[in-house]
Amino acid sequence: MKLVEPRTLSGFMELEPSSQLLFEKYKNIIESTYQKYSFTPLDTPVIEYANVLLAKAGGETEKQIYRLKKGDNDLALRFDLTVPLAKYVAKNYNELVFPFKRYQIGKVYRGERAQRGRFREFYQCDIDVIGDETLPLIYDAQIPVIIGEILNKMEIGKYVIRLNNRKILNGFFSNLNLTDFQTEILRIIDKIDKIGAVEVENEIKELTKYSKEIMSFISITGSNDEILRQLEELKIEDEIFVEGLNELKEVVNYLKLMKFNDYKIDLTIARGLDYYTGTVYETTLINNPEIGSVASGGRYENLAGYYTNKKLPGVGISIGLTRLFYNLLDAGVIKDYKKPIVDYLIIPMDGVDEFTFNIYNQYLNENKKVEICMLDKNFKQKMKYANRLNVPYVIIIGENEKNNNEYVLKNMYDGSQKIIKL
Amino acid sequence: MKLVEPRTLSGFMELEPSSQLLFEKYKNIIESTYQKYSFTPLDTPVIEYANVLLAKAGGETEKQIYRLKKGDNDLALRFDLTVPLAKYVAKNYNELVFPFKRYQIGKVYRGERAQRGRFREFYQCDIDVIGDETLPLIYDAQIPVIIGEILNKMEIGKYVIRLNNRKILNGFFSNLNLTDFQTEILRIIDKIDKIGAVEVENEIKELTKYSKEIMSFISITGSNDEILRQLEELKIEDEIFVEGLNELKEVVNYLKLMKFNDYKIDLTIARGLDYYTGTVYETTLINNPEIGSVASGGRYENLAGYYTNKKLPGVGISIGLTRLFYNLLDAGVIKDYKKPIVDYLIIPMDGVDEFTFNIYNQYLNENKKVEICMLDKNFKQKMKYANRLNVPYVIIIGENEKNNNEYVLKNMYDGSQKIIKL
Repeated sequence: MKLVEPRTLSGFMELEPSSQLLFEKYKNIIESTYQKYSFTPLDTPVIEYANVLLAKAGGETEKQIYRLKKGDNDLALRFDLTVPLAKYVAKNYNELVFPFKRYQIGKVYRGERAQRGRFREFYQCDIDVIGDETLPLIYDAQIPVIIGEILNKMEIGKYVIRLNNRKILNGFFSNLNLTDFQTEILRIIDKIDKIGAVEVENEIKELTKYSKEIMSFISITGSNDEILRQLEELKIEDEIFVEGLNELKEVVNYLKLMKFNDYKIDLTIARGLDYYTGTVYETTLINNPEIGSVASGGRYENLAGYYTNKKLPGVGISIGLTRLFYNLLDAGVIKDYKKPIVDYLIIPMDGVDEFTFNIYNQYLNENKKVEICMLDKNFKQKMKYANRLNVPYVIIIGENEKNNNEYVLKNMYDGSQKIIKL
Repeated sequence: MKLVEPRTLSGFMELEPSSQLLFEKYKNIIESTYQKYSFTPLDTPVIEYANVLLAKAGGETEKQIYRLKKGDNDLALRFDLTVPLAKYVAKNYNELVFPFKRYQIGKVYRGERAQRGRFREFYQCDIDVIGDETLPLIYDAQIPVIIGEILNKMEIGKYVIRLNNRKILNGFFSNLNLTDFQTEILRIIDKIDKIGAVEVENEIKELTKYSKEIMSFISITGSNDEILRQLEELKIEDEIFVEGLNELKEVVNYLKLMKFNDYKIDLTIARGLDYYTGTVYETTLINNPEIGSVASGGRYENLAGYYTNKKLPGVGISIGLTRLFYNLLDAGVIKDYKKPIVDYLIIPMDGVDEFTFNIYNQYLNENKKVEICMLDKNFKQKMKYANRLNVPYVIIIGENEKNNNEYVLKNMYDGSQKIIKL
């Protein structure tokens, strides 16, 4: 028979067991923290009607979409978890209680050009809070607290959540009569981490005479309180600016009450997308800024305008876990992750019996990872197997041990062994 | 703007929040139990090369497949988790340590005819142990123990794991020179739960004069030990039969050592598929036999023959969680699942402050589901909201309470309330 080559598509992550164990650990940290803060799980289909999924899409997104036909149905694979959330909330509006706090952790699909570190199938881990008509600003503060708690538990180094409010930027530009250039200017500002301040200023100069004002505005520095004070001292009376500044002050006030400090107001954060209308977040690992933002999001005015006339404002954030995991490995942040899958390997010298299973069950009930070695091989080969398994401890049970109601516990790393009485 | 109707495809399960919470609870029980027994997680792509995924498929399976094109690639969505496992093991043979114990919980896709209780996207929760050349029978015993532990934790009623060995059936038929009719006869026997013994005998009569022998064979009853004794007393010398009986005895012996009793040898279990070659399992909920088998599987001689010349025997089982969940709801086994999402709702009478957050953090740190009600509404409306949320307790903080360093804890079910001192 001609064999088929067992290939996996490029751009699709498929990990070996010990990496996968770590990946699951991170996923569980994210999930349990989302749950702790009363977000409820949502699990929408991977496949949707193409016209539903693409109601809002266009341009790049539409080109990247995985589409398929089944019978007469024109279908597509989800490319994010926000559109399915919008569909779900619009569809179930009458049954849901608002504010609706949901988390969803799932794979999404984008047929991007294959590239190092780019994935076509990847996990997004999203939380969003959706309000009915209005949504209190306390949730804009809760989100950084949750992301901070997750990053602390993941133990991948220090981080900072960079916080801004789009209205402050919008109001500032409107005040300079630059509203028409705003999208373009924000797009330029968004590149500041990549191209540097000088190049940003050059590009802005080509658009307006106010490049100095813009640069000194986005360069406002100091502690969070100092930045807020300097923004106030600008005495800008533009309505949107004032609204944004008040929102930011309220969010900062909540963050103080929540005793959360690992954030920094950063006026360069714009989150290019038109989508965001208020608070915006990006998250940087301080020792690994090259990884880029590991959790981004913000507030939007209306979640589901393509499906319903209800006004549904929301605030949310997303961790792109597949990309983050890849980058953490790549940057060497994750080390020593090749943990053994089994911690105790029982080697019964003459077959298993009740004695063996008593020891096995005892370890199992103590939540230890234990296995019985049943290979039909000699002792030396079994010890070799234990080494291949990278198991820290071997439990040896022979005739002598059984008679004495004991077993040998051998440390495979230092070779020491001791007798354990039952 | 014309609105798009927010539809979900039929055959795709999308639950409301409290059902989803319960679904996640079951999924977590399954996952944590699989992990407890040292199975490692595997997460393969949902999309694979069509020629890889369909190396073995044909007939019904191939018709149900979701296929798609992306660029020049002919792709397909996985229809089970066994083929991806075969691909993975063949691909990573040199890096894996055998026996390789993996679990995978994920969605699979089958474009079946839409029908009540049939799903086109559904979760499978699989464990398999794969050996290199050989695989000890102890794993055939471990699998029912794990499934039993999961079903006990799920608290969905009594169950029995029905156990058989295909070699016993095969050997028995070979002994009657019925090997050519065996597949057909097994297919008929497989229907015994649906059509009854009389109809099974009638159908078998059309094939062979040995219908009496076959019926009395598959009707052997009694305790597990009694069945084994009766099988021995048949004194069938067919090699395959003897091998199957010895295997079954060894598995039963392990089950005794593992102190597991919730299984029953059942000679009618054949698992129609050619795939299984030794031990086979089905699992029945005793009070809800109409649900059918909730966990089925068995031993196979060779996992990945389409991808590699290595002989890789395995044993595994699968829980079809989506279908099971639907059936449990449908049969009324799951009741009272509409648990509240939030247990404590804090209503601060005059805005949030440090006092509010101290109480909030205290509840949060005790792992209680707590929320602060921030709605811009009056007290009566907030209490109405608490009722809609179905929250068991409301925490009321007013000026008085703050001055006295206390809060009111109101039980929303019986209306009682008490003062809690901080």
